[in-house]
Amino acid sequence: MRRIDLNSDLGESFGAYTIGMDEAVIAHISSANVACGYHAGDPLVMDRTVAACKAAGVAVGAHPGFPDLAGFGRRTMTCTPKEVRAYIQYQMGALLAFAAAQGVKLQHVKPHGALYNMAAKDMDLALAIAQGVASVDRDVILLGLAGSKLLQAGRQAGLRVASEIFADRAYQADGSLAPRSQPGAVIHDREAAITRTVRMVTQGKVTAITGEEISMEAHSICVHGDNPSAVEFVRHIRAKLEAEGVAIAPLADIV
Amino acid sequence: MRRIDLNSDLGESFGAYTIGMDEAVIAHISSANVACGYHAGDPLVMDRTVAACKAAGVAVGAHPGFPDLAGFGRRTMTCTPKEVRAYIQYQMGALLAFAAAQGVKLQHVKPHGALYNMAAKDMDLALAIAQGVASVDRDVILLGLAGSKLLQAGRQAGLRVASEIFADRAYQADGSLAPRSQPGAVIHDREAAITRTVRMVTQGKVTAITGEEISMEAHSICVHGDNPSAVEFVRHIRAKLEAEGVAIAPLADIV
Amino acid sequence: MRRIDLNSDLGESFGAYTIGMDEAVIAHISSANVACGYHAGDPLVMDRTVAACKAAGVAVGAHPGFPDLAGFGRRTMTCTPKEVRAYIQYQMGALLAFAAAQGVKLQHVKPHGALYNMAAKDMDLALAIAQGVASVDRDVILLGLAGSKLLQAGRQAGLRVASEIFADRAYQADGSLAPRSQPGAVIHDREAAITRTVRMVTQGKVTAITGEEISMEAHSICVHGDNPSAVEFVRHIRAKLEAEGVAIAPLADIV
Amino acid sequence: MRRIDLNSDLGESFGAYTIGMDEAVIAHISSANVACGYHAGDPLVMDRTVAACKAAGVAVGAHPGFPDLAGFGRRTMTCTPKEVRAYIQYQMGALLAFAAAQGVKLQHVKPHGALYNMAAKDMDLALAIAQGVASVDRDVILLGLAGSKLLQAGRQAGLRVASEIFADRAYQADGSLAPRSQPGAVIHDREAAITRTVRMVTQGKVTAITGEEISMEAHSICVHGDNPSAVEFVRHIRAKLEAEGVAIAPLADIV
Repeated sequence: MRRIDLNSDLGESFGAYTIGMDEAVIAHISSANVACGYHAGDPLVMDRTVAACKAAGVAVGAHPGFPDLAGFGRRTMTCTPKEVRAYIQYQMGALLAFAAAQGVKLQHVKPHGALYNMAAKDMDLALAIAQGVASVDRDVILLGLAGSKLLQAGRQAGLRVASEIFADRAYQADGSLAPRSQPGAVIHDREAAITRTVRMVTQGKVTAITGEEISMEAHSICVHGDNPSAVEFVRHIRAKLEAEGVAIAPLADIV
Repeated sequence: MRRIDLNSDLGESFGAYTIGMDEAVIAHISSANVACGYHAGDPLVMDRTVAACKAAGVAVGAHPGFPDLAGFGRRTMTCTPKEVRAYIQYQMGALLAFAAAQGVKLQHVKPHGALYNMAAKDMDLALAIAQGVASVDRDVILLGLAGSKLLQAGRQAGLRVASEIFADRAYQADGSLAPRSQPGAVIHDREAAITRTVRMVTQGKVTAITGEEISMEAHSICVHGDNPSAVEFVRHIRAKLEAEGVAIAPLADIV
Repeated sequence: MRRIDLNSDLGESFGAYTIGMDEAVIAHISSANVACGYHAGDPLVMDRTVAACKAAGVAVGAHPGFPDLAGFGRRTMTCTPKEVRAYIQYQMGALLAFAAAQGVKLQHVKPHGALYNMAAKDMDLALAIAQGVASVDRDVILLGLAGSKLLQAGRQAGLRVASEIFADRAYQADGSLAPRSQPGAVIHDREAAITRTVRMVTQGKVTAITGEEISMEAHSICVHGDNPSAVEFVRHIRAKLEAEGVAIAPLADIV
Repeated sequence: MRRIDLNSDLGESFGAYTIGMDEAVIAHISSANVACGYHAGDPLVMDRTVAACKAAGVAVGAHPGFPDLAGFGRRTMTCTPKEVRAYIQYQMGALLAFAAAQGVKLQHVKPHGALYNMAAKDMDLALAIAQGVASVDRDVILLGLAGSKLLQAGRQAGLRVASEIFADRAYQADGSLAPRSQPGAVIHDREAAITRTVRMVTQGKVTAITGEEISMEAHSICVHGDNPSAVEFVRHIRAKLEAEGVAIAPLADIV
């Protein structure tokens, strides 16, 4: 039986500020990327989010980002590999404390926002992240963009890696994401997005934006809980996958 | 043979900002309280400080504080016990990551600044700290002011606790520190300070500011590395203690 | 004709985080307290909020708080009067830049949260705030709790001051707010709250929680835009005041 | 008589952290770039620095940077022009408050670190800065790298601009700075650096790294106060300039 993970960013609230529909989306996913206080999240939110994951049977991962709360970690910052390595260790350790306190194992690490995008293409940065993760816990899975430098770096650092796909994004012939600026890069038709995602999961194939059939390794699908329609989409894609005989399972059961 | 620990705050630099003479003082102490990025310190500094402690054979402890870099953690903040518990877990976890990466065990936790002072008297806060520590690692020692609520709370939470004394501060008859506002509260004569400290360590006795002989449990002496004369004092008190037959040893060898 | 100001906190969003129903409440108020980036708000939000106030004909005030985004400025911090004075100047200047850029005059300053509450009772802190405001702009009105030290300090610093009342809070016989812990301190019956507010505005009288008739100077009513029912309350109290022949006007037209 | 400004970054200390030899360097310069709390500086430091400038007869300028205290504003951040414009307004306003409180006029604005470097080449960013400055105060001078986009943008925004040269950096034939990675880009011979600086100031000429004679407009020389030898260099270059008949004067007397 085919298995796939559904991962979503959780625990992005901060102090008096609430963001995301964590309670709604948690029912439909198998892995959570929990913000660690740099680009989002705070200690109380982290504690609460780990508890919610534990209660829902959702696997917990760290979601480290740049130290940029004002920019939500979405702005490129030219940090050195040494800085990035230390930022990963710091944030991963912070989340590990809450996991330990609740008897939960940390399943994976997935970098956030600009750090994720930069690490897909920059091998030095990717290695800094992978080595940071490996230095703290060699059993943790590194989750990154399918075909990215981050996954290469993770393997090189001796980590298990998991390949993430996006339901609503077009791919280029080399397997990389088509840049958002390119027409057709974002797939707005939800049924089409779901159909191609099911195909990636069950057949490991997708049609590139230039028409070629390409292979696509898929361990996890990135989904969102920002708003009611995003949550509805998660519910829907999960139902479709299950109807096609695909089981939803956390990363640790897949890679 | 009598043993005593010498502890000092290290790793308080931040980004481009350097503070403290860490390299000089580390040669003379047995335990370091490493700042964890809330009131001082940053990930690179934490990494470097753990490495320096390892190289010097100094035991590593976490030194969590209030989230107040501008105030260096010295300002009272009315955080709830729940917040404080989560702040302790977060900072302790962050430091644990660097310790794990370098194969170093975390020996102790000592709260910093305003948090330390408040936890000496406020049992709810003290329990929040102790439970935060215990939830992450039951083997860690809680270091606090001799006779304080923090030590009570630590025992209650099932932790080993260590009792800290100050060389240059006068004590009241009940064993608490004489407030700085009181004349004679700070002992400016360095030889007198050293003499009374040696007596606390070897005999467990000290003369209160009001003249009474009182008992004082001493596992660790708090020393500083802020400036050359502070470092000189550490070198000096260590030599005096050793001359009196007292061995300098990390907390884990004492409690 | 009687006049009263309705003031509300606006511009508390931060980066990707939205808080408050600014667009809804702005239609019903005459003065806005704009967060200045310390406890809430950021430069883009400040710019946008000043523009929204200008468009709605709502007077702009600065709403400085403690440097505590994680605590939303609601936590007591033991800052020195010198620090508080400088924090006020900094935040007031920052907002003045956006006001100047849009050709808007800064009408008032109202401290936020814990700073507001502390300044109501602590004369040193109140003077630090008042002198900070006066040092930057002597024409700005200082808005504070009716009968508070802050208003005393404002007068002493040569500022015009405005007296703020709360619709849903009971008062003690000395004119101070009954602490929230006291039964009856918060008035949950909305009609009763409105009726007593109209009386404070039109007659300058209110019944204390212990039954005495006391005088209450009212230049402004503090209202909220946190949620739909809060906004509905503002709409309602405004309509009731107007029906009683009270005009809603910004502070600068009143004091 | 020829005149030149000597500018230096001041007020970069933060909370308990001291950086820079402000007291030593202030005696030798004519303009100060005062950090505004984003990449360095805090309200107390800003207040103190404006007072020191006033006492020393040194003109005060704002030195806004990216919101990155951990990176001291030296890391590139991909902020939008709208964000940068608002960051400039915010920081400039904050400093204006301290200047107003002390009866000091704000003379200039010079962006810091990565923002300065990016604005030298990126016209959108340069315009965002220039328009931010102009929106708050049209009389302020914009100080930037000689020949940079920032100066172009300043003129376009209707500001007076001032052209800054570096004593120890080689220039390319097009007048831009030779990148530090290029051999010979940094001039380590202090006497050679001073000689070429005097020539830029008195003759408006410099020899490019590739040998060509090029024109160089010089209104201000960037000097540093980081360490004793930097301060000694400032004292020395000032003496040499004065010996050559060049008067040291603040920007406002020059452009």
